[in-house]
Amino acid sequence: SHNVTKVFGVPHEQVVFCHDEATGLKAIIAIYSTALGPALGGTRFYPYESEDEALADVLNLAKGMAYKNALADLDLGGGKAVIIGDPTAIKSEGLLRAYGRFVQSLHGRYFTACDVGTFSEDMDVIARECSYVTGRTVAHGGAGDSSILTAFGVFQGMRAAAEHTWGEPSLRGRRVGVEGVGKVGRRLVEHLVSDGAEVVVTDVTEAAIDRVRAEHPEVQVVDGHAALTGAEIDVYAPCALGGALDDATVETLRAKIVCGGANNQLAHTGIEKQLADRGVLYAPDYVVNSGGVIQVADEIEGFDFDRARQKATGIFDTTRRIFQIAADEGVPPAVAADRLAERRMSEIGRLRGILVGS
Amino acid sequence: SHNVTKVFGVPHEQVVFCHDEATGLKAIIAIYSTALGPALGGTRFYPYESEDEALADVLNLAKGMAYKNALADLDLGGGKAVIIGDPTAIKSEGLLRAYGRFVQSLHGRYFTACDVGTFSEDMDVIARECSYVTGRTVAHGGAGDSSILTAFGVFQGMRAAAEHTWGEPSLRGRRVGVEGVGKVGRRLVEHLVSDGAEVVVTDVTEAAIDRVRAEHPEVQVVDGHAALTGAEIDVYAPCALGGALDDATVETLRAKIVCGGANNQLAHTGIEKQLADRGVLYAPDYVVNSGGVIQVADEIEGFDFDRARQKATGIFDTTRRIFQIAADEGVPPAVAADRLAERRMSEIGRLRGILVGS
Repeated sequence: SHNVTKVFGVPHEQVVFCHDEATGLKAIIAIYSTALGPALGGTRFYPYESEDEALADVLNLAKGMAYKNALADLDLGGGKAVIIGDPTAIKSEGLLRAYGRFVQSLHGRYFTACDVGTFSEDMDVIARECSYVTGRTVAHGGAGDSSILTAFGVFQGMRAAAEHTWGEPSLRGRRVGVEGVGKVGRRLVEHLVSDGAEVVVTDVTEAAIDRVRAEHPEVQVVDGHAALTGAEIDVYAPCALGGALDDATVETLRAKIVCGGANNQLAHTGIEKQLADRGVLYAPDYVVNSGGVIQVADEIEGFDFDRARQKATGIFDTTRRIFQIAADEGVPPAVAADRLAERRMSEIGRLRGILVGS
Repeated sequence: SHNVTKVFGVPHEQVVFCHDEATGLKAIIAIYSTALGPALGGTRFYPYESEDEALADVLNLAKGMAYKNALADLDLGGGKAVIIGDPTAIKSEGLLRAYGRFVQSLHGRYFTACDVGTFSEDMDVIARECSYVTGRTVAHGGAGDSSILTAFGVFQGMRAAAEHTWGEPSLRGRRVGVEGVGKVGRRLVEHLVSDGAEVVVTDVTEAAIDRVRAEHPEVQVVDGHAALTGAEIDVYAPCALGGALDDATVETLRAKIVCGGANNQLAHTGIEKQLADRGVLYAPDYVVNSGGVIQVADEIEGFDFDRARQKATGIFDTTRRIFQIAADEGVPPAVAADRLAERRMSEIGRLRGILVGS
């Protein structure tokens, strides 16, 4: 292939290939930056087609974590790891612990957590070899279901967007369309209903819809992505798969605000500009969905839900600040968010140059 | 290219890509194995054409160090590092110290040393950020010129080969052809003359020849590789560039023993078999030239020349043992050496499974 990913073609600080033949471990740990502290990011366990595909994914994900952690006001850099293989076929105590030894050998430059294909129980196994593990089971000090603060954070971001658009940090009387009412979307509906919003939802799973209707009979239901995004709504909250904001969706979108919990909402580069040109205020996904990483990161200090929730309220201020920078610098909020993250990495990262002595 | 090197296509334990944009550092540290201890191997600073070429080189060199260190009876695994770029253009305090921080971040899994493009003075700079550095200047506890024990070790290996071939561990009365009388070859001539051998030499550099003739007027000189290897000699000692043993050379070689200080003497796989088939005893290069790594490795304990020299006398026994295994198992000595190295890595490496307690 002509498109082989080159490690030195990207600005990542360190990329570590870890190999243990006996257990079949093939892992890549990518550290984008440690300017703000240890690189935190989950371990994805996935049957990549090739080493190159795995490398491209981990590099991309590590960069995303660096930006997310920077804007979540965490003292954490950005990293990510992938383990190549089918977890249902090769995941074992030996493999996970071999991986744990490699994470340990980085001596805190990288903290791991759950991601696709890894669960809190796996983190407990990794932690038998390694001190730098979050996302653990509650019995081992874990933060538990991180969708609680993810939803809470999205709601904070939406309040900031409401304030920017209508002058008041409230969704009272607004019509909010939530796409995907799984773990995060369902909890977001809860916040919206409490705040006095009208809520309309869609989901590919009947059971998820039934559950929301049972809890909140007043919630309306529409059939699918196009029906929701084309409906008369004030706010669109994508909380399902990535890529919800594609060209067709932006064309027909009637909402003034987009703010949801899904990852990678922009289907391609340039969508952020299209949204801005159409007068839609986009709250960058990685900013408003950072409640989850705030929750697991809190484990490093010994998990305290109230402290983590307090930290997640900061998403309101950060989102507001991003809208302000976007207005001041004449760029879409997604660009403003990237700039703010880069400034924090650069400004705070350089402070280590001041020797504190021993 | 279809021949892109894949990290997980080789058995190496860990490969670390280290990147610092500000200083231009692009380094790859390859750890083949830590079964026997920290991976020791030099840092090569070279203007590779591509990241892929650098990766292929460092993987190959790291494996070679693992085998060399294992047979040198060191408590060290095998590793190597490359820095991509022209050292005359980009080497700087900042780049070397950035590299030092990455080596330090491995916390002793890898020890570095000099190689092509790096010098003891560079090691001193790296050591300003890092505790895991050998090959330092004498003023900083360095072992100094490692060609002293390299030559001594080659001589020990040659004595073992003489014993295996003629029954006595001596070169007295034998005619030995030394190709390359630079730092190592010149010192080897010294040992040979003292032992009572007749010595014939060749070198591409006139000054090197003149120096040997000045020290030992009885040494004969021939003109070039073909003249030396085709001459009536009992022992051929390649001490110049790699690849000295190619098909043409093996065809015309009249020596009964090949034993020299050069790296990678076999031009291609299969030459070891051709030599054996023609009744030529080949003392594997990486076994007999390990006096140099024994010398720099001794720095880890605080350099003591007599202790390092004592250790290098072990090359006699190791070479003898390899010839014995080759005879017992019906394989060329090069294969026997690889097997012995693999056995030590496996047998001694597994002992860490016995917990010693705290």
